[in-house]
Amino acid sequence: MASLDILDVERIIRRAGAERVSEGAGQKLAEVLEEKAQEIAERAVRLSKYANKRTLTRADIEIALMYELGEMGKASPHAEFEKKAAGKRRPVPLAI
Amino acid sequence: MASLDILDVERIIRRAGAERVSEGAGQKLAEVLEEKAQEIAERAVRLSKYANKRTLTRADIEIALMYELGEMGKASPHAEFEKKAAGKRRPVPLAI
Repeated sequence: MASLDILDVERIIRRAGAERVSEGAGQKLAEVLEEKAQEIAERAVRLSKYANKRTLTRADIEIALMYELGEMGKASPHAEFEKKAAGKRRPVPLAI
Repeated sequence: MASLDILDVERIIRRAGAERVSEGAGQKLAEVLEEKAQEIAERAVRLSKYANKRTLTRADIEIALMYELGEMGKASPHAEFEKKAAGKRRPVPLAI
């Protein structure tokens, strides 16, 4: 762990309006962000390998984030399309 | 913006199994993490001020994250309690 710089994270908290920030606060937020980053990165690595790419690109991260949005129950960029398409054909599970 | 170090974020992606990582990939993930961090930090600042604290502590971040969990539709640590309590009293909106 400990990949993100705690000082960077503390700066974000201060910019959000905190007068002073305890060390634990920066640590905790850095931890949570890192877990989130790992989760998204793992999904992106999988997508990138699925597409036979040797370099993981912005597109892999973006697609990984769409899955993320879906999971959170918010509207994904595909939601509108999927709703229309659902009536017309059997859903095909995406096997990645 | 640009508070998180892109090199730190690229390291997380590489550790997740990417052979090579494009600059755009690191940038995009850093951006998304920073937005998320800002959102949580703003909530934590609000909670900290509500409690008349001058120093934002780990507890403020932790409580801000609980709201986060609620929003995502996952079980919050309070879910069980809230379910029980809901039958017994009128819900009181938390005005923060």
